[in-house]
Amino acid sequence: MSPPGIAKGGDSVSPNGTSTAMQDSLLAADLTTLWLLLAAFLVFFMQCGFALLEAGSVRLKNTKNILLKNVVNTCISATTWWAVGYAFARGECTSHSNPIIGLSSFFSAGGGASDDDPLYWALWLFSWVFAAVSVTIPSGALAERCQFRAYLIYTFWQTGLIYPLVVHWVWSHEGWLSPFRVECGSGIPSVVFPRTMGVIDFAGSGNVHMTGGGAALMGAWILGPRIGRFSEDGVMAFMRPNSPTSQALGTFILWFGWYGFNPGSTGCMYGCLRLASKIAVNTTLAAAAGSLSALLSETLMGAPGDIAPVLNGILAGLVGITSACAVVEHYAAVIIGVVAGLIMILTSKLLRRMRIDDPLDSVAVHFACGIWGIVAVGFFATKAGVAAAYPQTPLVDWGVFYGGSGNQLGIQILGAAAIGVTTLALNGMGFGVLRALGCLRVPTKVEEDGLDHSQSIGTGKLGSFSCCLGSV
Amino acid sequence: MSPPGIAKGGDSVSPNGTSTAMQDSLLAADLTTLWLLLAAFLVFFMQCGFALLEAGSVRLKNTKNILLKNVVNTCISATTWWAVGYAFARGECTSHSNPIIGLSSFFSAGGGASDDDPLYWALWLFSWVFAAVSVTIPSGALAERCQFRAYLIYTFWQTGLIYPLVVHWVWSHEGWLSPFRVECGSGIPSVVFPRTMGVIDFAGSGNVHMTGGGAALMGAWILGPRIGRFSEDGVMAFMRPNSPTSQALGTFILWFGWYGFNPGSTGCMYGCLRLASKIAVNTTLAAAAGSLSALLSETLMGAPGDIAPVLNGILAGLVGITSACAVVEHYAAVIIGVVAGLIMILTSKLLRRMRIDDPLDSVAVHFACGIWGIVAVGFFATKAGVAAAYPQTPLVDWGVFYGGSGNQLGIQILGAAAIGVTTLALNGMGFGVLRALGCLRVPTKVEEDGLDHSQSIGTGKLGSFSCCLGSV
Amino acid sequence: MSPPGIAKGGDSVSPNGTSTAMQDSLLAADLTTLWLLLAAFLVFFMQCGFALLEAGSVRLKNTKNILLKNVVNTCISATTWWAVGYAFARGECTSHSNPIIGLSSFFSAGGGASDDDPLYWALWLFSWVFAAVSVTIPSGALAERCQFRAYLIYTFWQTGLIYPLVVHWVWSHEGWLSPFRVECGSGIPSVVFPRTMGVIDFAGSGNVHMTGGGAALMGAWILGPRIGRFSEDGVMAFMRPNSPTSQALGTFILWFGWYGFNPGSTGCMYGCLRLASKIAVNTTLAAAAGSLSALLSETLMGAPGDIAPVLNGILAGLVGITSACAVVEHYAAVIIGVVAGLIMILTSKLLRRMRIDDPLDSVAVHFACGIWGIVAVGFFATKAGVAAAYPQTPLVDWGVFYGGSGNQLGIQILGAAAIGVTTLALNGMGFGVLRALGCLRVPTKVEEDGLDHSQSIGTGKLGSFSCCLGSV
Repeated sequence: MSPPGIAKGGDSVSPNGTSTAMQDSLLAADLTTLWLLLAAFLVFFMQCGFALLEAGSVRLKNTKNILLKNVVNTCISATTWWAVGYAFARGECTSHSNPIIGLSSFFSAGGGASDDDPLYWALWLFSWVFAAVSVTIPSGALAERCQFRAYLIYTFWQTGLIYPLVVHWVWSHEGWLSPFRVECGSGIPSVVFPRTMGVIDFAGSGNVHMTGGGAALMGAWILGPRIGRFSEDGVMAFMRPNSPTSQALGTFILWFGWYGFNPGSTGCMYGCLRLASKIAVNTTLAAAAGSLSALLSETLMGAPGDIAPVLNGILAGLVGITSACAVVEHYAAVIIGVVAGLIMILTSKLLRRMRIDDPLDSVAVHFACGIWGIVAVGFFATKAGVAAAYPQTPLVDWGVFYGGSGNQLGIQILGAAAIGVTTLALNGMGFGVLRALGCLRVPTKVEEDGLDHSQSIGTGKLGSFSCCLGSV
Repeated sequence: MSPPGIAKGGDSVSPNGTSTAMQDSLLAADLTTLWLLLAAFLVFFMQCGFALLEAGSVRLKNTKNILLKNVVNTCISATTWWAVGYAFARGECTSHSNPIIGLSSFFSAGGGASDDDPLYWALWLFSWVFAAVSVTIPSGALAERCQFRAYLIYTFWQTGLIYPLVVHWVWSHEGWLSPFRVECGSGIPSVVFPRTMGVIDFAGSGNVHMTGGGAALMGAWILGPRIGRFSEDGVMAFMRPNSPTSQALGTFILWFGWYGFNPGSTGCMYGCLRLASKIAVNTTLAAAAGSLSALLSETLMGAPGDIAPVLNGILAGLVGITSACAVVEHYAAVIIGVVAGLIMILTSKLLRRMRIDDPLDSVAVHFACGIWGIVAVGFFATKAGVAAAYPQTPLVDWGVFYGGSGNQLGIQILGAAAIGVTTLALNGMGFGVLRALGCLRVPTKVEEDGLDHSQSIGTGKLGSFSCCLGSV
Repeated sequence: MSPPGIAKGGDSVSPNGTSTAMQDSLLAADLTTLWLLLAAFLVFFMQCGFALLEAGSVRLKNTKNILLKNVVNTCISATTWWAVGYAFARGECTSHSNPIIGLSSFFSAGGGASDDDPLYWALWLFSWVFAAVSVTIPSGALAERCQFRAYLIYTFWQTGLIYPLVVHWVWSHEGWLSPFRVECGSGIPSVVFPRTMGVIDFAGSGNVHMTGGGAALMGAWILGPRIGRFSEDGVMAFMRPNSPTSQALGTFILWFGWYGFNPGSTGCMYGCLRLASKIAVNTTLAAAAGSLSALLSETLMGAPGDIAPVLNGILAGLVGITSACAVVEHYAAVIIGVVAGLIMILTSKLLRRMRIDDPLDSVAVHFACGIWGIVAVGFFATKAGVAAAYPQTPLVDWGVFYGGSGNQLGIQILGAAAIGVTTLALNGMGFGVLRALGCLRVPTKVEEDGLDHSQSIGTGKLGSFSCCLGSV
């Protein structure tokens, strides 16, 4: 802590001795760093939102277990992202360069193309918190029956490989789906698919939410439903969330954090905050519309009325607008939110009919609305919106509702398909192997007693690392 | 998300090709946008604070209901503010211009006088979160007995008309009480009341807290007390808050959010942050003083000792300093806080004597201390403080304790009266009509069982929209 | 609130009429103020984190009491810091100047050497929130058995004298241990101990966490263990925390707040944010490593598995990296975190063996890891790291693992010893006097019933201020 009077800020601006150009670029870097750091802090706080929402949604006997999983996955994601995740995602434009996976910057907290990058560490932090969201999403779907060790292994798998893969594809300078793709030497834009921009997934409906939601779907499916969830004739038992207060608090924190997630994804501050403001407004309107849409849908369908669908409606709207937030008009944000709320309600019902037990509707919120979000861009993106949000990429197409040719809609669908297939396949493999090894699900007795009450709660047998011998 | 190396920030500062003047004004706009966005995010988070404080303060059987109301009112306020609220408040300097109500910018997220305003969206967001606070305040006063549908209707009424009215009066360029009032064409200051500044309500003790607190008063009065609250001989039963943890958490979040509410109300950043820092310090000292004052008052009066008055003392201090935060000295902030704590305790006792049942003391905190806050400016505002906080308005008067003529004190009292009468009258009408239609209060059975346990909890009969036929 | 169109930001940048140099220094001051304010808001929010963590960790019957203590200590710390704390800590370079204690700026919210300091109020706020953390730390160690009045007196003692003392020593321009020490007239650096930098305690492992943790140690020791905690043969009873959700929420909030605590301690923004980003990354990695280390340690030692050690592992890592965050490499941050997690687990076991009952392991987390943090600098600080973080101080030494001479390690150990002895001695005196006067511990009956259930809960007998006559 620097004491008053020696504030470095006061000294470091020396109008003489430093050229104006140098000062300006230092200032721009500082402002962008500020923006990235603040956004990263807000997105980090979403970890707390997920933990609260999930702890409030499960039954009391499994609260501590799910909190522990969320806390530990945050910590594992940080160390894994440092060790390998960032390298696979963003290690780019080196001799090993390729459009599929990055292969440099291992055990590094950033840097990308150059160690002199003034944004070095801020970009690492900002990219890590997104990875952490992706890895946390499924913990709700796996709740109340997954072994602790299996969850840890999933965490490494998702942060270390699956999420980095799609980030490299869609957000790096090399990825085959990326609108930021360039020739590495010259920096000239070089999109793979002609007459498109590459996938527009501005803040990650696809990259973050579909990857998390896809893991949730495969995990919930392969784990099977909780004991007593579905009767033999298919009727679903209501399993009472233990704390509506925690659910609401968690959701509000997630909404709060989303103001870092979406506006922060401008990735710059100087000259970019008008865009960030528009994004913040769209994010707000979609969240509100999603919630009201879910409330109305539930009411019209004669549902008994609970707080969870209204909260999930907020999240549905937020996930839905995450790809399109920078490129659509406000009324479109409202429509995207309304449709997202409805998609969430319907997907939840569909999963129940399929007897897939997702205690928090993570699949409906993140996977289904994630697909909707990335595809909605193909309909609603305006020409001016795309031009303002992607100034570095030649503008070739936009939403079909605004006279777009359909090329962009096509690449959005391709992107959604690519991300969806990847996360479903790789997570299916992961959870499948864990099940085959017998270390995915807790024993019946433990599940019935509650994962918190087990002698070996949480960490008990972890020490042995003999995955298939222990029971929790 | 822009990848490393194409950070737009780095590119957009081109010292050649852009004149320094243009860069400077772009920079100032960006910095102010940053400040408004960050403040707006913090104020948004106050929604969570109110929800927690209220959920913790009611009895367990009504928790989910009050959370649902708070979540939904946030969502309704966003869509309503977009549709009409902002237009009534800030649609100004058009051909329909008048000092009473704005009449342009419907279904718009900002813009004010010009679409080219670089602050466009940020101002909308910042103004919305204030509206959302105003609308949320009464939910505590209405707790445990108000129908869900009635609450929804109130929400539209408050966000769509009442709050926009007073904002137009006090904070727009046209309002009859506004220190920002100008001749629309020339931009020359033009305050209605000669030899005054117009009402100094810097961050909204009056505009936000009195309007919310007034709605709380009329709602609680017209609804009547909860069953069992007052015995026939007037003794008040203690209804145990279900979670002191939620109460404390909610209050801390509100205090945290107030650092956006008050300092953010500078409405600018470049050259304004010294003022914002002073505001943050005054806000802190008033909150602390209010709490200690309430604690001491309770103790000296021999009260049994509970956490609620101490928490409400914090809020009382915060509401009390909200008008004056920019224009008073630190010791005055301490005094304002101390007095606010005492006013809150005494008002609470008075309301109980009047058999008005306000479960969260929202009236005492927001209405009574809101009045105190706006009036206190007339006593404590320093000449230098007013000049620094309102540089665009000719300085004519200040607090009577510093040699002011009393004109400013007069207009502060007039302002408080105008805001008070408006919110009491219009909210009285609204709640009165709802009661006359028989859709204000839940049936006795529902109230006794708890609003959460009702079959039709929250949303049950909403679908019919037949206001007077359903029961919740 | 300034309305749209009169945004002061737009007006105050006048490229004509103001010289570029003046603009630049105004801009730098504004940016640094922004950074200090935002960091201060985040650190303020840590008060909420501590309150939640503690409320969740105690038994249900003492929840309200500990919340009340945390709320009130926040308020007392603000007013005390304004009245005397800041003056003792930072009143410097006046005629009363000395290396031991500051003696100017009483009843002032900042200013330091000059009233014209543009950072005036922001520095006060930033310094207060650190004081507030220091004073809050022990409330966990004193939980469930300390009288309310005793806690209030401790609060004044810690905020008014003990914490200001060490801050003056280590962070002021005059302190005998400070790397910022200068000749007051000339501003020329003047470190007391030749061939060292003074103590490198960048964000306060020593100043903040050791002072708080030392108070926790003396308080817990002098209070004695809770009834039933230790059986006669030394076996410790498990006292079940009432809410793992609150514990996890509190910890996440603390981690979130630490992003203000450590990166904010750059004390400047313009030209400093690259350093702040590095600090944020180191903070993240140490927190994650501390948690995983604690989890693994517990597991390998065959512990029953609980969430508290994993959460405390996060805090241990955070406390451990707080001194060194600016001057070490990432891998060193991981190692510091791992060791901190282990130190925390071992210290906790040691205290139990000594029959010192610290309900929240505050001593293990803050005192033990605080020592480790300040000493670790002497091992891991890199030459480049020290040069970048302390540009105003001549570089003379660095960590012994990087070829340092050991001088810096020596002064770090001296610093830890000085801070440790001071906090232990002065807090020992304070708690000792309170015990001798018979007003430290609640009566057995009150403790058994729970402090919340007592008729005189919290504030009951406070009014008399007759310290030794009352019971709570």
